Amino acid sequence: MVIDSHAHVILPPQRQLQLMLEAKVDRTILFTSMIHPETTNTIEAFEEELNKLYDILNGVKNPMNERIQAVEELAKVIETHPEKYIGFGSIPFGLSYDENLAWIEKYIIANDFRGIGELTPGSGKVSELEALFSASREFGNLPLWVHTFLPLNFKDIKELLILAKRYPTVPTIIGHLGGMHWLDTLKAIREIPNVYLDLSATPTMLAPSFAIKEYPERTFFSSDAPYCSPLTARTIIEQIVTDPYVLEQVLGGNIARLLQI
Amino acid sequence: MVIDSHAHVILPPQRQLQLMLEAKVDRTILFTSMIHPETTNTIEAFEEELNKLYDILNGVKNPMNERIQAVEELAKVIETHPEKYIGFGSIPFGLSYDENLAWIEKYIIANDFRGIGELTPGSGKVSELEALFSASREFGNLPLWVHTFLPLNFKDIKELLILAKRYPTVPTIIGHLGGMHWLDTLKAIREIPNVYLDLSATPTMLAPSFAIKEYPERTFFSSDAPYCSPLTARTIIEQIVTDPYVLEQVLGGNIARLLQI
Repeated sequence: MVIDSHAHVILPPQRQLQLMLEAKVDRTILFTSMIHPETTNTIEAFEEELNKLYDILNGVKNPMNERIQAVEELAKVIETHPEKYIGFGSIPFGLSYDENLAWIEKYIIANDFRGIGELTPGSGKVSELEALFSASREFGNLPLWVHTFLPLNFKDIKELLILAKRYPTVPTIIGHLGGMHWLDTLKAIREIPNVYLDLSATPTMLAPSFAIKEYPERTFFSSDAPYCSPLTARTIIEQIVTDPYVLEQVLGGNIARLLQI
Repeated sequence: MVIDSHAHVILPPQRQLQLMLEAKVDRTILFTSMIHPETTNTIEAFEEELNKLYDILNGVKNPMNERIQAVEELAKVIETHPEKYIGFGSIPFGLSYDENLAWIEKYIIANDFRGIGELTPGSGKVSELEALFSASREFGNLPLWVHTFLPLNFKDIKELLILAKRYPTVPTIIGHLGGMHWLDTLKAIREIPNVYLDLSATPTMLAPSFAIKEYPERTFFSSDAPYCSPLTARTIIEQIVTDPYVLEQVLGGNIARLLQI
């Protein structure tokens, strides 16, 4: 089974299925989208869509409402094709332990989502995720998916790895493989077996190539659609990996084992 | 004709031809490589290779000798398959006008290279390229290929565009499309027709997608091999572009017109 381990809701939903078909992806781990850049056709419209996101981040739009709407949109898309999709639900940043528990119960568990993300802490803020690690453990160790490309730096990534070490039962997925810091990230995770690597959005194919060589059981094929396509992401992995068993694991087996799909 | 407009010398040379074949690339614009990360198989060996580059940049190894060797390696590879390759020659950074002229004559023109690059100015140093713009004009407007991903910021890219404006006959190729600043770069080049966009190494497919929409005659398919593969780069372009005429131009027509291939 080929599993795209990270894609955002794309509109119209038919387009998402078409992209999966083009790449021969059987199932997709689907994440929320607060904006839909894939629906824009000009630079101006794209910028307007980005500004919506900034309005949410800056509090001009109510971030809680926008997030709840995105969760509802995700749940609806999954409901139409439960055999195709598995959900990861988003959560506001900086909640207390009790607030995390309440949100997870209401928006993650109730929707039958299987993990939490995409978490996008600002630089210097990663340690504030500790209450969420603790809440995840309370709910049977829901995997946490953390964006580690810009604006995070390697100090932030090290903070994240400290949390992963402190909560060894909580699967921690390093989104985008550490971004520009992929090499240091690969060296830093060796002794932290609950850390997994998402292979999307790296600026060079050398990054997923070395990641898979070093961690063939902890690396996940993913598109980050609409920011990349499943076909491009799969093409990259298939060129990098020559061993058919490893290829099968990276393209789906590893994430299937983690989520018990 | 499909032309990969930017790849570095890969060892062994047979591997380069194999990558071209896999992507059905007819010709490649080939650039020097002072290091060969593609020959390494472990993180440790890769780091050792990177350290060689740092030694060159920091003057521990003689940067002039290393560059001349890389130019010779490039010329040798092209010589074996002149029907497959067109060279762009590198040049040391920060030469005076006269030194630029002397280098271009000895290492670019004498090798029948058709352009200059990859130029990698540090942040804050871009304006020092002016002598090279001037020298390029002197030699019939050799295209200049400039790396604009990190460590450059958008202020640096604007400096580069000022030079391109000041030398309107010198084709200036924005390597990697402005990197993280691709959107601002797309907006800034509208009135500078001698600026062209290299589509490699962008962290999202949205970047080349909007670039081609806005500038179908100024965008070049490129792999930046060994950092990406021609097949991945071509797969990206083919998914983005639906118009067959535009696709043909981006995959080869545009760079062929510029270099009169």
